[in-house]
Amino acid sequence: MAIIVQKFGGTSLSNAEQIRRAAKRIIERMQAGYQVCVVASARGHQIEDLLRDARELNPNPPKREMDQLLSTGEQQTVSLLAMALDAMGHKAISFTGSQIHMLTDGVYSNAQIKSVDSEFIRRELNEGRIVIVAGYQGVDEYGNITSLGRGGSDTSAVALAAALKAQECEIFADVDGVYTADPAVFKNAALLDEISYDEMIEMASVGSGVMHIRSVAIGKRYNVKIRIRNIANDNPGTIITHEVPQMEGILVSGATIQKDMAKIGMAGIPNIPGKAAQIFARLAEAKVVIDDIIQTEISPEKANMSFMVAKQDIEKAKAVASQLKAEHYCDTIMVRDNIALVSVIGVGMRSQFGVAERMFGALAKAKVNIESITTSEIRISCAVGLQDVERALEAVCLAFDLDRPARQRTQVAK
Amino acid sequence: MAIIVQKFGGTSLSNAEQIRRAAKRIIERMQAGYQVCVVASARGHQIEDLLRDARELNPNPPKREMDQLLSTGEQQTVSLLAMALDAMGHKAISFTGSQIHMLTDGVYSNAQIKSVDSEFIRRELNEGRIVIVAGYQGVDEYGNITSLGRGGSDTSAVALAAALKAQECEIFADVDGVYTADPAVFKNAALLDEISYDEMIEMASVGSGVMHIRSVAIGKRYNVKIRIRNIANDNPGTIITHEVPQMEGILVSGATIQKDMAKIGMAGIPNIPGKAAQIFARLAEAKVVIDDIIQTEISPEKANMSFMVAKQDIEKAKAVASQLKAEHYCDTIMVRDNIALVSVIGVGMRSQFGVAERMFGALAKAKVNIESITTSEIRISCAVGLQDVERALEAVCLAFDLDRPARQRTQVAK
Repeated sequence: MAIIVQKFGGTSLSNAEQIRRAAKRIIERMQAGYQVCVVASARGHQIEDLLRDARELNPNPPKREMDQLLSTGEQQTVSLLAMALDAMGHKAISFTGSQIHMLTDGVYSNAQIKSVDSEFIRRELNEGRIVIVAGYQGVDEYGNITSLGRGGSDTSAVALAAALKAQECEIFADVDGVYTADPAVFKNAALLDEISYDEMIEMASVGSGVMHIRSVAIGKRYNVKIRIRNIANDNPGTIITHEVPQMEGILVSGATIQKDMAKIGMAGIPNIPGKAAQIFARLAEAKVVIDDIIQTEISPEKANMSFMVAKQDIEKAKAVASQLKAEHYCDTIMVRDNIALVSVIGVGMRSQFGVAERMFGALAKAKVNIESITTSEIRISCAVGLQDVERALEAVCLAFDLDRPARQRTQVAK
Repeated sequence: MAIIVQKFGGTSLSNAEQIRRAAKRIIERMQAGYQVCVVASARGHQIEDLLRDARELNPNPPKREMDQLLSTGEQQTVSLLAMALDAMGHKAISFTGSQIHMLTDGVYSNAQIKSVDSEFIRRELNEGRIVIVAGYQGVDEYGNITSLGRGGSDTSAVALAAALKAQECEIFADVDGVYTADPAVFKNAALLDEISYDEMIEMASVGSGVMHIRSVAIGKRYNVKIRIRNIANDNPGTIITHEVPQMEGILVSGATIQKDMAKIGMAGIPNIPGKAAQIFARLAEAKVVIDDIIQTEISPEKANMSFMVAKQDIEKAKAVASQLKAEHYCDTIMVRDNIALVSVIGVGMRSQFGVAERMFGALAKAKVNIESITTSEIRISCAVGLQDVERALEAVCLAFDLDRPARQRTQVAK
């Protein structure tokens, strides 16, 4: 019997009515002949309430205790969902991450999954039960409760789908799927029928909030077909899958923006092997996540370097940079706030030319000044001023026909 | 290093201020040189909220899922308490029932403790940590979360104190300890310095709400010194301990009332060996808890029987009795609602006479009609009309000097 994994987020489970709606989506799949394993997040606002309770007692609570506290949010949802299914006449059983042996490392608040006991879940499924698993959480080898960090419930769902060799992993959202761009910014954005793992990973890394990079990466690694669909309707949604040949015909699949970035520049770094590595090691020690490193040699003795950091890391990055300057790792530091990134993503870039040219042309025509440019194999990102970013996105979307479904685009021919 | 187990109930932990107050009580003991293991209940109102959420989805939720749901209440409290202690500069670590291997049978909502991993807790205590354990909950051999039922957190605390061979198990309450009678009814009730396990068990069985019978019974079995004290002051409270010789000099240690009872009578039961056993087996099957059975032979062929049941079991008991009548287990059934019990308890009864006489005399003088009488070795209970019970308690208390501390009483000499 084929297995389907379904994941419901917290905003889809915030009250009894929504829990019953989720239960109906589960029953539909049961009745279509699948075994169903469900992953659920904490109910909307539960986590905020618990965070407030914790901060009231301790402004900097121990991470182990935070995970112990917050994991109750999902535990409540899964038992309530099981009760709702029972009331509708279906056998369901709920489990915490610990109960299904979702084994992780011991990094509280950001743990990595090591293994999951799929046989345990299979036995329950084979008893005819709907299995409901608390997302976002696991347990380390000593029995401590851990949480998987951002996007955690998606990660739980995709990992379970991989372990159970599920036919599909359905991620229910409050949107119809993945769009070519954020419809809140570019209102003519088109819905994508499918997108490759690599594109989705790149999109997530530069601002798309639909799915977290980590869960997509696990999906790619274990070949899990992920479907993002709307909880409120029956639309088929967007499938995230392996690249198929026709995807290459499409130059750009989507565009994103990422606001609230800052650019940190360090000028006059001694051109000695290992200096850059030491700088990045220090930033990593301070847990600063850096993006888009640009290094240029300005003389045989000196080099300049700049990198982007997200809002929450700006202060940490500045502090590390100042310390490095004091230790003569560089001559001067430059910080530029209010930077944003506009990016285009597409596996078609690998085999087609002219993407950068068309992007820069569109930005120039829209009078958007480009601060710096970085690229990956399937992405081009331009740093622009925060005040220009929405205009920049629209210009780029129109340049690549992102207001039309993939099949109707004329990107290459243009 | 001596170990103290401290238990804080939900009404003592309902907000940040109360949690910090509990933390201070813990730190006091730490600083007095003890290792401290704490048991905490769910925060006030959390359980009611969760019950409401559950009932909204399912009027009769599966018990396993109820335990899974409600256990989050204690889990939240213990992590918050650990955070509060951390903020005050003390190392603390919280555990669920599952994490300390509080192994129970699989009877959801009313599980019995089978064993607890005291070595696990000892290791943490020896690391200098305050160990905070979620009360009320355990785990069965398959990893399912169970709850211990009424008085569950007291039971957890006493069981842990036994397993850890703690010097004392402190149960924090919002009263100063155990009184000779409920001060809300008999306002001159005196506080008891100490009371024997057997007396406390009898008092709990006939209406004293201070501690649940089960936790006291475990205390007796494993010789745990239990101290009930007020969270709001430093008074020494009441110690529940083994009977000591001077307790025998006190005729009556306390008096209780139990409202909302009903008396079920079955008349004309065939006087055949085994009939009564069959009747009680059927009541037990329906999970009716019965008290104060009175059986009288009315002829060589027939007997009458009556028993008391508490409010929540009245409907079930009536249904079983009707069914038994239909099966000719008896000729008629009589149900008398609005019955209450007034009881006096004291280990001194074992060696002294005249208790019953003095009790009946006091009730007669107060013009309280006695419906029936039952006794144990250290208790006499009279069933009276609900409307008379408070007057009855006062009369009995005055007859046994229960308005004075034990040492000042003149019960025997009277």
